[in-house]
Amino acid sequence: MSDYPTDHREQAAAWFRALRDGICAAFEQVEDELIGSDRPAGRFERKEWTRPDPEAGEGPGDGGGGEMSIMRGRVFEKVGVNISTVHGTFSPEFRKSIRGAAGDGKFWASGISLVAHMHSPLVPAVHMNTRHIVTSTAWFGGGADLTPTFPDAEDTAAFHAALEAACRQSPAGDYPRFKKWCDEYFYLPHREEARGVGGIFYDNINTGDWKADMGLTGAVGEAFLDIYPKIVRRHMHERWTPEQRRALLVKRGRYVEFNLIYDRGTLFGLKTGGNTEAILMSLPPEVIWP
Amino acid sequence: MSDYPTDHREQAAAWFRALRDGICAAFEQVEDELIGSDRPAGRFERKEWTRPDPEAGEGPGDGGGGEMSIMRGRVFEKVGVNISTVHGTFSPEFRKSIRGAAGDGKFWASGISLVAHMHSPLVPAVHMNTRHIVTSTAWFGGGADLTPTFPDAEDTAAFHAALEAACRQSPAGDYPRFKKWCDEYFYLPHREEARGVGGIFYDNINTGDWKADMGLTGAVGEAFLDIYPKIVRRHMHERWTPEQRRALLVKRGRYVEFNLIYDRGTLFGLKTGGNTEAILMSLPPEVIWP
Repeated sequence: MSDYPTDHREQAAAWFRALRDGICAAFEQVEDELIGSDRPAGRFERKEWTRPDPEAGEGPGDGGGGEMSIMRGRVFEKVGVNISTVHGTFSPEFRKSIRGAAGDGKFWASGISLVAHMHSPLVPAVHMNTRHIVTSTAWFGGGADLTPTFPDAEDTAAFHAALEAACRQSPAGDYPRFKKWCDEYFYLPHREEARGVGGIFYDNINTGDWKADMGLTGAVGEAFLDIYPKIVRRHMHERWTPEQRRALLVKRGRYVEFNLIYDRGTLFGLKTGGNTEAILMSLPPEVIWP
Repeated sequence: MSDYPTDHREQAAAWFRALRDGICAAFEQVEDELIGSDRPAGRFERKEWTRPDPEAGEGPGDGGGGEMSIMRGRVFEKVGVNISTVHGTFSPEFRKSIRGAAGDGKFWASGISLVAHMHSPLVPAVHMNTRHIVTSTAWFGGGADLTPTFPDAEDTAAFHAALEAACRQSPAGDYPRFKKWCDEYFYLPHREEARGVGGIFYDNINTGDWKADMGLTGAVGEAFLDIYPKIVRRHMHERWTPEQRRALLVKRGRYVEFNLIYDRGTLFGLKTGGNTEAILMSLPPEVIWP
């Protein structure tokens, strides 16, 4: 890991922070634009967290930390945007299953993770996450996917097209493969249901050209920042019925089932002593299992 | 497995059915007793399910089936009581991890499983499950545990005392061990919280005396049937506040987290093609992650 230029790590971490700032500003702007609501426009609340640094003699565990940004608004019922940059040593049991960690187990990781649950059953929920991980090797991973309660062909097409265009901006992009990966990953076998209408999912990206790989992750973030607010604006003034809201609450149950039973990031985080509050910020604010 | 007397299997399955009938009748009686409610007393709805029998040429999978009983009442917000008796062959990947299944992988299993989520935040939720499993060996497992939002020392003591008395009725019972096992099992490491106030949990019970082992499981079922309705009656007419109800909905989130992340029965069932509807009947009707 020590051979990997700190400069690249700094660039990646700075991008995730800048993207977070851009997303939070864009989402607050959406909150401001809602017409006819008695409720005040939502604003993000930010909370920092740190992990004890073993090198500073603060005990076992990993160093670094992150920032959670959470907004409970009038369009966004609950949206969490987390960034983190952590480093440390994987415990021996995890080293074998992680690329490049079989030796000394050292890692550095930085990323952004976002989940938005909306008041309106006509506005799709969304998830976006990109990350850069460095062990004895280094790679990028990430993706974005849309979870409508009532799929809208125009939204789905626009979301997919935005991600396809992002993939085309970098030689590291492979949209057909990433789209298929997403469909396979976000699937609930016990329900025989997809979690949503897909998007892209990618991992282990290392073409040997760091700029190209970082370029893919940058383009995915920018595509998300551009397209999702457009989809929200397209539906946020539509009226919905109690039956539609109820369908949303049921759909959210599937989201919980996926995240807690199958999502590798969630389970890995919880079982390796990650920040529980940040990891479970993805859970919906209100859910029913009727 | 073929050496195991069918008679014992039939006795166990008949007991689980009889206990189910007794519990459903007792819970409907509680529904009838609620005073001052505009809503009608709840009644259980029953739904049978079967698995295709491979020996009858109905394709791969296991035979047998079960009955789900679910009530959405005015005291019981959602209560599911499931019985099932299934048989078949474990896939090679599971055989090693299951006692006595390493050979031909054949199994027979029968049991009862119950989870009750209550309208009132002052009435504790409860879980009870007992089962008899036969492979090339045979054993009993089960337990019962209480999950109040606002623990009440008297309820907890009464619940524990009832289970302690049940354990004392059979030489297979070992209350101190089963109580500790329950506390260790129903624990959420990522929250550093117990799921509830405990009870008992036991598994792999085979003393060599089938009557004693079945006697333990019978006594646990009877103790549950006696004590839980008493605890419900003690609180079901108490008034609660919206803040208390909100605390209940948050507490239920922990229940979901436990069942989907850690509960071996839930995960094993979902990943081996069990009946999803029956397995996830344990999930609360309404939950918040604020």
